[in-house]
Amino acid sequence: MNIRFYNAKILTMQDEQLIEGELWVQNQKILYVGDGSDVDAVYQELSLESIVWDREIDCAGNLLMPGFKNAHTHSGMTLLRSYADDMPLSDWLNKQVFPIEAKMDGEMIYHLTKLAVLEYLTSGVTAIFDMYLTPETIAQACVDMGMRCVQVSGQNNFSQSLELTERMYQNLNHDNPLLSYFIGFHAEYTCSRELLESVAALAHKYQAPVFTHLSETQAEVEGCKERYGMSPVKFLDSLGMFDYGGGGYHCVYLDEEDMDIFQNRGLSVVTNPGSNTKLASGIAPISAYLKRGINVAIGTDGPASNNCLDMFREMFLVTGLAKLREQDASAVDAWEVLKMATVGGSKAMNLPDTDVLAKGKQADIILIDLHQPNMQPLNNIPKNLVYSGSKQNVKMTMIQGRILYENGQFTKAYDVEEIYRKANEIILSLR
Amino acid sequence: MNIRFYNAKILTMQDEQLIEGELWVQNQKILYVGDGSDVDAVYQELSLESIVWDREIDCAGNLLMPGFKNAHTHSGMTLLRSYADDMPLSDWLNKQVFPIEAKMDGEMIYHLTKLAVLEYLTSGVTAIFDMYLTPETIAQACVDMGMRCVQVSGQNNFSQSLELTERMYQNLNHDNPLLSYFIGFHAEYTCSRELLESVAALAHKYQAPVFTHLSETQAEVEGCKERYGMSPVKFLDSLGMFDYGGGGYHCVYLDEEDMDIFQNRGLSVVTNPGSNTKLASGIAPISAYLKRGINVAIGTDGPASNNCLDMFREMFLVTGLAKLREQDASAVDAWEVLKMATVGGSKAMNLPDTDVLAKGKQADIILIDLHQPNMQPLNNIPKNLVYSGSKQNVKMTMIQGRILYENGQFTKAYDVEEIYRKANEIILSLR
Repeated sequence: MNIRFYNAKILTMQDEQLIEGELWVQNQKILYVGDGSDVDAVYQELSLESIVWDREIDCAGNLLMPGFKNAHTHSGMTLLRSYADDMPLSDWLNKQVFPIEAKMDGEMIYHLTKLAVLEYLTSGVTAIFDMYLTPETIAQACVDMGMRCVQVSGQNNFSQSLELTERMYQNLNHDNPLLSYFIGFHAEYTCSRELLESVAALAHKYQAPVFTHLSETQAEVEGCKERYGMSPVKFLDSLGMFDYGGGGYHCVYLDEEDMDIFQNRGLSVVTNPGSNTKLASGIAPISAYLKRGINVAIGTDGPASNNCLDMFREMFLVTGLAKLREQDASAVDAWEVLKMATVGGSKAMNLPDTDVLAKGKQADIILIDLHQPNMQPLNNIPKNLVYSGSKQNVKMTMIQGRILYENGQFTKAYDVEEIYRKANEIILSLR
Repeated sequence: MNIRFYNAKILTMQDEQLIEGELWVQNQKILYVGDGSDVDAVYQELSLESIVWDREIDCAGNLLMPGFKNAHTHSGMTLLRSYADDMPLSDWLNKQVFPIEAKMDGEMIYHLTKLAVLEYLTSGVTAIFDMYLTPETIAQACVDMGMRCVQVSGQNNFSQSLELTERMYQNLNHDNPLLSYFIGFHAEYTCSRELLESVAALAHKYQAPVFTHLSETQAEVEGCKERYGMSPVKFLDSLGMFDYGGGGYHCVYLDEEDMDIFQNRGLSVVTNPGSNTKLASGIAPISAYLKRGINVAIGTDGPASNNCLDMFREMFLVTGLAKLREQDASAVDAWEVLKMATVGGSKAMNLPDTDVLAKGKQADIILIDLHQPNMQPLNNIPKNLVYSGSKQNVKMTMIQGRILYENGQFTKAYDVEEIYRKANEIILSLR
């Protein structure tokens, strides 16, 4: 498909400048971004006098920007949205989440992942970094929906295995350009030392980065210090876990030495403020990460602990909670947050072709409605996006050149009501 | 207009029960709410065999509930959305907000209030508690838009006067059923003792409740203690300010004695978590208020300090920040938050006819789209509303029986693009 967007404001995320102009998509990639004055060069390069457009979309002055990267989620947990909330964390996990999860199978997770994908699209999310139980059916759901999905293995003492991880690492990095796969594990506190050493060995074998839940709660850090005499970051690093990079989800409780390791190894922090708030885990020291030049990305975490998959709410929380933590209304400005939600996510997820809008990049693009009251007046569009933006402003979500959501409607390729019906049927069958 | 909603889920907010049934609106009021089995009694009472409906709306299983009450805002500050953010509070106020506000006139505030009303409607807000500079043009804007508006005087040492307050109190409580007016003042720290005594005397003359910004920041509380040897709540109460009730906006730093006063006098707390977050003011002790039975309502504050007018974001923040403050994931459950956003607001704003959906109440109603991925599966609808709900789920907003927003479109009575154009023109003229 060749699609021309015109009459657009364009935030490429290469810098804070807004372009007024055009963006052209050819099949899966961006062919042109600019003010339209230099399109002759594009035609010359293609040896064409004109391009036959499948669609020409008048953006009516609305904003094109790179899609958001949801850099930490558990999509299949849509099942448990509002299933058990307002409970202490340990009751929530042990009495509600784990017993239900034990009954979930790959087919169920296939359907529940599709439900999550619908929600990502309404929130302008064009790529997810997903850790959940059945990688093959998650991959199938994402391919069937057209979602870009980076998976990471979540093995622990109780579920998944190193063999599965290695097989998935081999298969899911080559099957489909929408898919990729990282080596990971659930968390230090759910894995034996032997298992962790095996994961580190696998990472060495493939010279691969590793991601995991990391220093999410104070209790987790204290527990690791009791077990190994070191913080989780320091302990895992001592096993060689991060020799080829990677990073951590949550990272609420990193100390200065942990940050040294993140900085020296080029690790990424994926912050999850909605989940950390709802589960009362704490507020991550984002300003300290930024001051050290540590790459920060943003994730929603799973819908059982958030409970939504809304990058706008996360963006507000990243800066708002930093301001509260530091008692400083100037902490972590809006532009930094937008970079985390786009460029920072692409970097953590090893998706360099999705970070900014530029020629040759993947066409993972969203159109933001500025003709809504929460975006007016147009004093400062980046600040509008972070401080007053909402899912309601997402007019279009395109992944790999395919428009999957537009003007409040999903692509006709989906049977949306059937996806809802399935989710309700599954929870009723498991209760 | 007679409007019949059928095939609806209905959360009346009288209790947590959901009704599956119908809601009938006759002119400005609710004529019937129920499962439809008892409508004969309605016809008998009206001595009618049937009702001629102007519209019959198939709700398709979606949710009717009372509209949200935005119990603290400064609508005219839409002008300053994203105008100056990520700055320390004192610079923001003194170098950016005050100089621009000094140049604003009543006509500008008329247009800027209309912009805010558009945003309220997208967020399901059916009544606002507004404090700003020119009460007459704010009232006119709300009447012209069909918005229910409770105003409160914001006099201080620099703007507005006791004479204006008294005149508005006399006029705006009788002009139009959409309008009412409270006696108030900006804050202890912007008013002389003499002015405060005059406000208290006026409240006594009319036996009227009083609202004000109250204990928003630690610095405000410390300043009052230096000036008068007492906390703001205690000092104002000592002047007789709250002898006929009222309450405070923000209330982040109330101590036990302050709470005693709130409890004994039946005062309302209006919490503003978005603003308190963005301006790094702190987290209010909501659980303590609830434990004492103090009425709590929710407000967005003005769009210069939030920066949006989104009750869904506020609802999540009320509970999320309480959970963080108390390090307890069970703090302030979703149902309590929903009550604050509806019933609690009606109580604070003295709008008893708008609190719940019941026969004879004002038809201030919203329709929530459950056929969206963030509302599925339907494990628990109140929790879905608070934890994963979003403005995107607002399918319809009705005030006083008039549908002002439906399926993403505003009533044709508005010229939406002209409202946007005016707001941009005004900010350009004042820069």
